[in-house]
Amino acid sequence: MFDKVALIGIGLIGSSLSHVMRREGLAKTISISSRSQETLARAQALGLGNEFTLDAGEAVQDADLVIVCTPVGVCEQVAKTIAPSLKAGAIVTDVGSVKASVVSQMLPNLPDNVHLVPGHPIAGTEYSGPDSGFASLFENRWCILTPETSTDRDAISKLKTFWEKCGSQVEIMTATHHDLVLAITSHLPHLIAYNIVGTASDLETDTRSEVIKFSASGFRDFTRIAASDPTMWRDVFLHNKEAVLEILGRFSEDLSTLQRAIRKGDGEYLFDLFSKTRDIRRSIIEIGQDVESPNFGRHEAED
Amino acid sequence: MFDKVALIGIGLIGSSLSHVMRREGLAKTISISSRSQETLARAQALGLGNEFTLDAGEAVQDADLVIVCTPVGVCEQVAKTIAPSLKAGAIVTDVGSVKASVVSQMLPNLPDNVHLVPGHPIAGTEYSGPDSGFASLFENRWCILTPETSTDRDAISKLKTFWEKCGSQVEIMTATHHDLVLAITSHLPHLIAYNIVGTASDLETDTRSEVIKFSASGFRDFTRIAASDPTMWRDVFLHNKEAVLEILGRFSEDLSTLQRAIRKGDGEYLFDLFSKTRDIRRSIIEIGQDVESPNFGRHEAED
Repeated sequence: MFDKVALIGIGLIGSSLSHVMRREGLAKTISISSRSQETLARAQALGLGNEFTLDAGEAVQDADLVIVCTPVGVCEQVAKTIAPSLKAGAIVTDVGSVKASVVSQMLPNLPDNVHLVPGHPIAGTEYSGPDSGFASLFENRWCILTPETSTDRDAISKLKTFWEKCGSQVEIMTATHHDLVLAITSHLPHLIAYNIVGTASDLETDTRSEVIKFSASGFRDFTRIAASDPTMWRDVFLHNKEAVLEILGRFSEDLSTLQRAIRKGDGEYLFDLFSKTRDIRRSIIEIGQDVESPNFGRHEAED
Repeated sequence: MFDKVALIGIGLIGSSLSHVMRREGLAKTISISSRSQETLARAQALGLGNEFTLDAGEAVQDADLVIVCTPVGVCEQVAKTIAPSLKAGAIVTDVGSVKASVVSQMLPNLPDNVHLVPGHPIAGTEYSGPDSGFASLFENRWCILTPETSTDRDAISKLKTFWEKCGSQVEIMTATHHDLVLAITSHLPHLIAYNIVGTASDLETDTRSEVIKFSASGFRDFTRIAASDPTMWRDVFLHNKEAVLEILGRFSEDLSTLQRAIRKGDGEYLFDLFSKTRDIRRSIIEIGQDVESPNFGRHEAED
């Protein structure tokens, strides 16, 4: 599909893209760059690409598709580094969890003769690094593209086909809308999980070890999300500040109401809330975005 | 191990106990009672017991072990109902997620010649009802017993052995301490999950359907917990009010600090918090309280 694809950054998403591109034959040459010598050596040992370099500018030379797979906080620097080496007509995309900031960091720094089509595959695990990737990560998942209205239709179409070949369904929306929706579905849940695990982490040693011991009563679910990559998530919150604070405000209001209901012993309010939340779970299972098995199928994983 | 065990209530925990007692040969006769004719008929169709009755008093006649598997809000009523029919020397226990309230609801209403040993198996799924049980639910999980200091040692010891034969490890602590630890590990996570899914549920229709669609970015984890039984959880919050409000207070303080760090763009604070939470996840996996597989092993469940 492409003669040469450059992956700038080779963590969970970058390495998964490498695996699926190999499996589907989407790139003749995969060129990989990383800022870290250690990560790059690991990617090379795993055979994730054909070319390996610490210099992102070198990696993008002659590439038809450049996929920036770094934390969103370094997108501006990446754009500046690769700009002089980009091939005319190249498609430049990314996989960041925030989109408006990526546009404002990258667009002004790229030459006019390349096509910036920001993207976000709604897929991931709590693991990070080049060892954590696998070819099926994007299967049955959504990938959101947020091109500007002036962006070349063919470039958008080609990137859409690329993600479909990776197993995803593609949705196109504005960067601002993406950032609001993801603030609810992703950024707030991560924030809350980090916060609740942080609260537990601050407990006295004895209590903390009991929390770990009895975590199967609910807490352990939160620790999975709170084990996600710290650098990536720091950058998400720094770069989607307004939408996150807006959604956090709603969450806090609702929590105060719930707190008052508990204090007052308002069983009817609690029952009504706890009933309506079941419907959302059912919808998610129906559209195939989660497994129906109890406890996410943990038992199957243990066997 | 017992001639006759009575299960008062036959939801997820009751039916799982039935399965594991059968598998391990722990009871010659299993007597089941439910307040609902429909549930009782379903339990009978599933062959979960030997005797079935709508009258809890009838179910406990001649039982050596009585396990109350109802929502904690009806424990007092159950104690009053079964008290006149209990055999002298019977062990009476329960499986509720709150313990101090269970003691104060049941102890004054039971005859002096039976042994109340409250219990709480730290095990469950998001499903409820007699169809949802399975024999391995308690395997490698903890079961906490919270007897009074004056409780008969033999009764405690016998119940401990029972739970060990069900696959659990047993820990003994005071009811008050149990309620504080579970407020952190279980009640707060459920409260937060219900709240965040409730916030999403209140969004305008278009946004809500997008939240469901893109739920794989984190939100879907919360919906599993928020799909738990509404009656059971209403009762938990009504009956562990003080500990829940205390822990919720700490959580809210921490969340305010985190909110301010985002507003101020304090990346160092965010990075430090997001790093230390990873350690807790690692500890939970090390002690075997969760699976190591990415995304809880959802991929294995799908295959």
